[in-house]
Amino acid sequence: MKAEIIAVGTEMLMGQIVNTNAPFIARQLNELGIEHYYETVVGDNPERLVELTQIAESRSDMIIYSGGIGPTQDDLTKQAIAEYLNEELIYDQECLEQIKQYYQDRHQSMSSNNLQMALTYKNGQSLKNETGQACGSLIYKKGCLYVFLPGFPDELEPMFINEVKPYLFEHLSNKQVLASRFLNFFGIGEAALTSRLENLISKQSNPTIAPYASKSVVTLRLTAQGENHAVTDKLLDQAQEEILDLVGEYYYGSGYNYLPMDALFDYLNQGGKTIAFAESLTGGLAAHLLVNHEGSSKIFKGSTVSYSEYAKAHVIGVSQATLDQEGMVSESCARQMAELTCSDYGADYAISFTGVAGPDKMEGQEVGTVYCGFASQGQSTQVKRYHINGNRSAIRLKVIYQAVLDFIQEKS
Amino acid sequence: MKAEIIAVGTEMLMGQIVNTNAPFIARQLNELGIEHYYETVVGDNPERLVELTQIAESRSDMIIYSGGIGPTQDDLTKQAIAEYLNEELIYDQECLEQIKQYYQDRHQSMSSNNLQMALTYKNGQSLKNETGQACGSLIYKKGCLYVFLPGFPDELEPMFINEVKPYLFEHLSNKQVLASRFLNFFGIGEAALTSRLENLISKQSNPTIAPYASKSVVTLRLTAQGENHAVTDKLLDQAQEEILDLVGEYYYGSGYNYLPMDALFDYLNQGGKTIAFAESLTGGLAAHLLVNHEGSSKIFKGSTVSYSEYAKAHVIGVSQATLDQEGMVSESCARQMAELTCSDYGADYAISFTGVAGPDKMEGQEVGTVYCGFASQGQSTQVKRYHINGNRSAIRLKVIYQAVLDFIQEKS
Repeated sequence: MKAEIIAVGTEMLMGQIVNTNAPFIARQLNELGIEHYYETVVGDNPERLVELTQIAESRSDMIIYSGGIGPTQDDLTKQAIAEYLNEELIYDQECLEQIKQYYQDRHQSMSSNNLQMALTYKNGQSLKNETGQACGSLIYKKGCLYVFLPGFPDELEPMFINEVKPYLFEHLSNKQVLASRFLNFFGIGEAALTSRLENLISKQSNPTIAPYASKSVVTLRLTAQGENHAVTDKLLDQAQEEILDLVGEYYYGSGYNYLPMDALFDYLNQGGKTIAFAESLTGGLAAHLLVNHEGSSKIFKGSTVSYSEYAKAHVIGVSQATLDQEGMVSESCARQMAELTCSDYGADYAISFTGVAGPDKMEGQEVGTVYCGFASQGQSTQVKRYHINGNRSAIRLKVIYQAVLDFIQEKS
Repeated sequence: MKAEIIAVGTEMLMGQIVNTNAPFIARQLNELGIEHYYETVVGDNPERLVELTQIAESRSDMIIYSGGIGPTQDDLTKQAIAEYLNEELIYDQECLEQIKQYYQDRHQSMSSNNLQMALTYKNGQSLKNETGQACGSLIYKKGCLYVFLPGFPDELEPMFINEVKPYLFEHLSNKQVLASRFLNFFGIGEAALTSRLENLISKQSNPTIAPYASKSVVTLRLTAQGENHAVTDKLLDQAQEEILDLVGEYYYGSGYNYLPMDALFDYLNQGGKTIAFAESLTGGLAAHLLVNHEGSSKIFKGSTVSYSEYAKAHVIGVSQATLDQEGMVSESCARQMAELTCSDYGADYAISFTGVAGPDKMEGQEVGTVYCGFASQGQSTQVKRYHINGNRSAIRLKVIYQAVLDFIQEKS
C-alpha cells in the first residue's frame, strides 16, 4: 500500500505555519509499514486541491488530507473532494450535538458555518475528534482510501492514533492488536545508542525498535503486534529486557515524552517529599521545568536564582571566605548553596547548580564545568562535578537532567 | 511569476526532520511578490524527482529544490535534473578549492564523493555557500528557472537571502533595492491589530505590511523597495509613523525576533542598572527568559522563586500578617516581595509576580489574576493588578511580558 499526505492551508504557503503534521503522519505510516513517497502542501483552493488529488490517485492508494475541515468559508477539503468523487456528505449527529452543546454551555450564539464541521461521508465513516470540534472522515472508493483530518496537531495526532490507525491496522493485518512502549535514555547520543543496539534492532521485527532524539534525551519506541494485549505485552517486556541488558545504565524511565524532570516529580511525589533548588548558571530553568509539571506545588518549595556573587553571599548566605578563596564555581560553594537552601525553604531535599555556561571561562574554569550539591534534611551532602558539552542553553538543560537523575539514584 | 518548492530527502518522508525550509522560502517569496501554490516533499529518488519536476513545470515558472546537493551517494538533485534537462554540470573552481582546503586544514583525507558538492550548471550560475561546503546552482531554461539549494537551514537561509534573492530581485524589478523592518507589538492579537490597520494594509503596496504572530507577540514586517537605501528608509519611516499613529499604544520596539525581555535588557543596559525578580506563579520563567539574553550577568542579580507560602514568609520575608489576612495573591504581598527582593539582591530595581496560573482558583481569586510590584532603590513601589487570559503557560508568559513593558514605561 502506498500513501501520500496532502496538507491544505494557505497559512502554510504563506510560511506562517510549519507543517509538523506530515512528519507525524510519516512516522505513523512507517510504524504501520505503509510506504509513502510524496508530501504536498496546497492552499485553500478547491480547484488546485482536486488537481492535486488526481495526481495523487495516479500514484498512491491512500490520500491523507490535513486541514480545511474547520468552520470558516475557506475550510472546504471534505466538500471539494466529495464533489469531485460525486459522493454525498451528511451530518454526523453526535458531532453536531457536541458543537451545539459547546455554544449552549457558553451562552454564545453559533453561526451556521460551524455546522459544516460535522460533515462526514455518507458512504464512509466519521473519525471522532477528542480534542476539538470538527470530526474527521474517511471513504474508500475505486481502490483509493481518502482520509480527512483536522489541521491542528493537537486534534490530528489523537485522531490519527485512536481512529485512523486502528482502522488501517484492522484492514491491513487481520485484526491483530498493536501496542507501543517508549523507553527513555539520557547521557548517550542517538548514534551511540543505536550503534550499541545495532544487532538487536536489525534482527528484531516484532516489536520494531525505532530510536529518536529530542531535547537531549533519546527515546526508543517499541511497537509490537499480536493476537491480544497479553501477547504484545510479553513481546515488549522481552525486548525491553534485552535492550536494558545492553544500555540500561542510561535508562531512566518509560512513557511518551517522559523527561528527567518527570522522573524527579514521580520520585518526590511517591515518597511525599519536597525539594528546593539553588540555581546559578541554570538561571531559573530548573524551577521552570519542574513548575511546568502539573501538581508541582505539592513537591516544589522554590528556588533561589543567585546570578551574582552578591546574591550567593547575601541571599543564600554562602560564606565570603569560600567565595574569596574557592570561588563561586567550587565544591564548597555548591555544598553551602544546597544545604542553606534546603533549610531556608524547609524542604526535604535541595539541589544546587553552580558552574560555567559560557561563552567565556569563569574563575579559570572551563565552559561546561558545573558543581551540583545534593542536600537532605539530617543527612550529609554530596557534591558532584560535571563536564558538560554544548552551547549555553544545552549546558543548562543537560546539567539539570544529569543532576536530577543522579540525585534520584543517590537517594533511592 | 509562479514558483513552487520541492524538498528532497528521505529523512523528511521518514518523519525524522520537519521541513522548515519551505516556510522560510515561502515568506521570502511573499516578500518578493512571487506567487506560489505548491510545496512538495519527495525522497532521494531520481525517478520520482524527475516525475515531480515534470508536474511542477506544467504549472510553475520557477522550481526551488532544497536538499540533495551534499557529498553522499544519495545526494543527486543537481545530477538528476541535469540529466533530465540534458544540461552539463561542471565544477565551480572556487567551491572546489574550498572543499580541498577544508580537508587539508584538518589533515584529513577526502573521499572523491565530496567533489560533487562543487558541481554547478555550465549554462547557469553558482550560488555561494557561506556556511557550508556544497555550492548551490541555478539555471534558466525554456521559460522555467531551476534553483538548487542545500537542505540544511543554516546553509539554505543565507544562500537564499544573499544569492537567490538579489538574483530574483534584479530579474524581477530593474535593479532596485529591498529593505525590511520589523515592528513588534504586545497586548493585542493578530486579528485585532490587522483589523485596526485594515485600510493602511490594503492601500499600501510599498512598503508591503505583513503581520505574523509568535510567542504572544505580534510583528509587522514592512518591506520597501526603491532606488537606494535612502529611499527605502524614508518609505519605511513614513509607514511606521502611520502605523504607530493607529496602534502605537501596543508597540514596544523594532527588530527581528525582538521580544519584551530584549526591551528590558536594553533599557537596563543603557542605563547601567540592575534588576532582581521575586517570582511565584511564574516559577523561574522570568529569570530564565532574561538569562537567555547574552550579557545578562551585567544587569541581572537573581530571582527568588517562592513557590510556597513558607518560602514567601521565610526566604523573602513577607509578613505573616499579610499572608494570613490578605493572602499570597494580594497587593500587599506583591509590594513586600518586590521591596524585600530589591534590597536583598542589592539591585536597582525588582519586579515581583504573585497570582493564579491555574488550573484552579486560589484564595478565592480567579485564574489569571496576578499582582506585580515594581520596586526601586529609594523610590516608592507601584503595584499593578492584571487579569490574563490563557492556559497556565500562556498566563505565565503574558504576565511577564506585560509587567516588564509596564515597568519600562513607569521608569522611563
